[in-house]
Amino acid sequence: MPGTPILPFVARTRLVDHHCHGVVTGDLGRIEFEQLLTEADTVSSLGTTLFDSLIGLAVRARCAPVLDLPPHVPAEVYLARRAELGATEVNARFLRATGTTEFLLDGGFLPDTLTTTEQFAALSGARARDIVRLEQVAETVIGATGAAGFAEAFTGELAKRATTAVGFKSIAAYRVGLDLAEERPTDAEVTEAAGRWLARIEAGEPVRLADEVLHRFLIWTGIDLALPIQFHVGFGDSDVDLHRCDPLLLTALLRATRSHGVPIMLLHNYPFHRNAAYLAQVFEHVFVDVGLATHNAGHRAPAIIAETMEIVPFGKLLFSTDAFGLAELYHLGTALFRQGLSDFLYAGLTADVLSEVDAHRIAALVGHRNAERVYGLEGT
Amino acid sequence: MPGTPILPFVARTRLVDHHCHGVVTGDLGRIEFEQLLTEADTVSSLGTTLFDSLIGLAVRARCAPVLDLPPHVPAEVYLARRAELGATEVNARFLRATGTTEFLLDGGFLPDTLTTTEQFAALSGARARDIVRLEQVAETVIGATGAAGFAEAFTGELAKRATTAVGFKSIAAYRVGLDLAEERPTDAEVTEAAGRWLARIEAGEPVRLADEVLHRFLIWTGIDLALPIQFHVGFGDSDVDLHRCDPLLLTALLRATRSHGVPIMLLHNYPFHRNAAYLAQVFEHVFVDVGLATHNAGHRAPAIIAETMEIVPFGKLLFSTDAFGLAELYHLGTALFRQGLSDFLYAGLTADVLSEVDAHRIAALVGHRNAERVYGLEGT
Amino acid sequence: MPGTPILPFVARTRLVDHHCHGVVTGDLGRIEFEQLLTEADTVSSLGTTLFDSLIGLAVRARCAPVLDLPPHVPAEVYLARRAELGATEVNARFLRATGTTEFLLDGGFLPDTLTTTEQFAALSGARARDIVRLEQVAETVIGATGAAGFAEAFTGELAKRATTAVGFKSIAAYRVGLDLAEERPTDAEVTEAAGRWLARIEAGEPVRLADEVLHRFLIWTGIDLALPIQFHVGFGDSDVDLHRCDPLLLTALLRATRSHGVPIMLLHNYPFHRNAAYLAQVFEHVFVDVGLATHNAGHRAPAIIAETMEIVPFGKLLFSTDAFGLAELYHLGTALFRQGLSDFLYAGLTADVLSEVDAHRIAALVGHRNAERVYGLEGT
Repeated sequence: MPGTPILPFVARTRLVDHHCHGVVTGDLGRIEFEQLLTEADTVSSLGTTLFDSLIGLAVRARCAPVLDLPPHVPAEVYLARRAELGATEVNARFLRATGTTEFLLDGGFLPDTLTTTEQFAALSGARARDIVRLEQVAETVIGATGAAGFAEAFTGELAKRATTAVGFKSIAAYRVGLDLAEERPTDAEVTEAAGRWLARIEAGEPVRLADEVLHRFLIWTGIDLALPIQFHVGFGDSDVDLHRCDPLLLTALLRATRSHGVPIMLLHNYPFHRNAAYLAQVFEHVFVDVGLATHNAGHRAPAIIAETMEIVPFGKLLFSTDAFGLAELYHLGTALFRQGLSDFLYAGLTADVLSEVDAHRIAALVGHRNAERVYGLEGT
Repeated sequence: MPGTPILPFVARTRLVDHHCHGVVTGDLGRIEFEQLLTEADTVSSLGTTLFDSLIGLAVRARCAPVLDLPPHVPAEVYLARRAELGATEVNARFLRATGTTEFLLDGGFLPDTLTTTEQFAALSGARARDIVRLEQVAETVIGATGAAGFAEAFTGELAKRATTAVGFKSIAAYRVGLDLAEERPTDAEVTEAAGRWLARIEAGEPVRLADEVLHRFLIWTGIDLALPIQFHVGFGDSDVDLHRCDPLLLTALLRATRSHGVPIMLLHNYPFHRNAAYLAQVFEHVFVDVGLATHNAGHRAPAIIAETMEIVPFGKLLFSTDAFGLAELYHLGTALFRQGLSDFLYAGLTADVLSEVDAHRIAALVGHRNAERVYGLEGT
Repeated sequence: MPGTPILPFVARTRLVDHHCHGVVTGDLGRIEFEQLLTEADTVSSLGTTLFDSLIGLAVRARCAPVLDLPPHVPAEVYLARRAELGATEVNARFLRATGTTEFLLDGGFLPDTLTTTEQFAALSGARARDIVRLEQVAETVIGATGAAGFAEAFTGELAKRATTAVGFKSIAAYRVGLDLAEERPTDAEVTEAAGRWLARIEAGEPVRLADEVLHRFLIWTGIDLALPIQFHVGFGDSDVDLHRCDPLLLTALLRATRSHGVPIMLLHNYPFHRNAAYLAQVFEHVFVDVGLATHNAGHRAPAIIAETMEIVPFGKLLFSTDAFGLAELYHLGTALFRQGLSDFLYAGLTADVLSEVDAHRIAALVGHRNAERVYGLEGT
């Protein structure tokens, strides 16, 4: 096994993956595989293969054995074996290798190529529930309403979706950045902004929400419905203006929303994970994870997890993979999270700065108890 | 003892704590204790206890023995023992456990609940001196003057306070952020800004300075009086807009003030401690510490200290705890600082990248000699 | 030898230093030596000697033996031996100790005090080639042209310089920051900006380009000539506004230029090295290094290199020293780079997350193959 030995209670801890996506159902050629491996859109002729990366090494070291191969086999051998087994078998093996008992799925990005929630549950042998992407709902209703009716149509549709979902997600970071004003927009502002959006659509632009007022309206509507709201923060693909995705830019909005008691979940956060941890310490409704970075950073994931844990209260840190499409990412995100948490606790035990009881409690909080409490998953 | 063994000369190094506050004189219930433990204002029902954090673990691991308890006792047991001993005994034990010989106290925040400088000196058995908070002086004089007389009244009062103080402190970071203009404001600008402030006060707003021109005027007045000026930077409570507290925002002001030869002390700095270290390298009058983060980060403090020491000249780094109110924080900030400095030097000695003579010199510079030189504490 | 043992294949790896400068040809007194040691302009009476720093320790630990002294000798002894040997011998010893076979030299800063490219090649016994600083060319041609003729004069001169150079360099970071617009400026905008610049020169200001439109014009002209373009990013001296030098500020320009296939080389990057690594992952034409920080951080260099390698594809990371003037910096930058790369690979081998074959491949890519491929150095 690669990495340092995992503490047995960390290896066994039940996990709730509070942010991930569906998995691609079809077989993948090398180019598609590499495109899904990192946040790069394409493989560049200027660079080398994307297997030349910590995540590429991690696939060959940690995923190859799940497909009955020795670790470190060449990428060609790995991909040939993957093709031989077929997507369904590969997907099931990796999802079941995670030990995750509950997946919260954001199905709002490229849903046509991915498993549905039901398919995902069947493949993984675990429970799967829905996170509703706010922008996707808005983009669905805008076509069937005028500017004046948008607010009511969106609110009604979101309330309907909320009955079967456990949380919402905002991708304002991808569209306008996180420097959002703190006020709830007025009805007149929402109508005016919806009118601007409709005018762009009528002028032939794609139905893609990117309006600070409307992203904010979506978030406040989600707060009224009292489900946890996830925010994409930090690390993402080249569509992101990363300097507009520092979670600290949310400070005013966090101050304005704290009295509502609705949990705000800051996702990913890398390379701003210390900033996010600060927010989780000082704002009682803020929670954080370091998904996406975990599998991208391979054997450096433990270092990133340790940085995140410096000032975050352990009751505010959650596990997620942010795996998307590629089955390997669920396995890697999970295995590397367990590695990082185990290394952190093992160092603490060795230095006698925490007790065995403490270590068990921290692993349970971060692995599943925080997610169960915040999303209300217990006993449902 | 938790942690790795401390090098004997680091354990023995005399310390000057160049930035801390008074300690709460009364007994504390669990809620008050947790409120003082981190930068969170309240304990959230969404989270768990704030003992679930590295600082909570550090209290139980490192403070319990000072109260005659075994390490890692449950929080309830710890708090019961604390109550049994009483605040005065607890405060004295922790302050005397530090090995600090000199404390520079900022008494400008919530002074009514804390020890005075004289009480602190008596409790700790050490010397204690005053740092004057610029904004508090301004908020004292504004009520007794008109707009036109403010500048003179402030300058006179600060000069008086300077006779018994060893430095000033600006909390512009908390009020307007650190993006301060570089120019010394003109008399007319100060009068105008004072008039705006008085108008807000007369309209019933609290007497709370938050005006970029006036913060800047206070700083320049401090520079004229030629005492070191401390700046709150980075990590703080939820009142801070942390993205406005990156020390790099001070660059223009640092460039404008360097020829005056007055030391500028950047406090805390986390998570911008590498940025602060850069400023200390390139500006001859800039000094830094990593107080507050040291105790908050528990056994991760050594990692933060090591990052800070990458490019900072050792003649520019100071020790502080930024402890406030809770006696445990003085002990933890000090013990974890010694741990981090020792780990750093031990790694260097083991790798043979520095000599024993170097290690002793660095410990003395950072522990006390830099503070003594910059604040002029020697032989006084 | 200081540091952990270097893996033999890393110690032997041929290096291309894709960004450095000439070396000072004359002898150096202590003040000149300290001024060249770090990014500080002067030695401050407020601080202590600049030998009190990780780089100062590294000089005494790693450079002293090259001058036949034992490690850790006092600075005075080191400097006396240096003077005894003389600049030419000292320069040759350190440059030849690097094992670098090819140096790409930016000769655009203070050229009169430094070796020429030819002198550098002779001293080092290696190949040396030119990187052309865009701003220096513009500052050369502006005097001999009017506003209307500037664009053509610059383009012609740059094309001429390009025939013997392997890349360009922009120092927009030092002059206007990196928040550059994405569009190629129009002819009219360039003429207007050149007119503004000429007016400043005629008014007696120094011939120093600092105009966002013109920096951008220079960059796009470089892109037309299809040589790699280096950008100063992050860490530099006190002339830099470091908060305007975050590589993420280049995002819009990177998006606009990606289709041109011209490599963009982000230099230094510290303390924004993780941000730079992100850009290198998501933009196919972006490459990064961590020069300058490597020698400044002494035995912390491996930690910085490891952080940089978290998400950067190994085909996108290059070696550089950014050594300037002081011969010790070439040796330290190189030795500490090998130390960091070796530590990183050794940790991976020990944890079995990569194979021996992988480790060799990564060392070759980062050490020389990426630079050879991107700058077209192979077989020339």
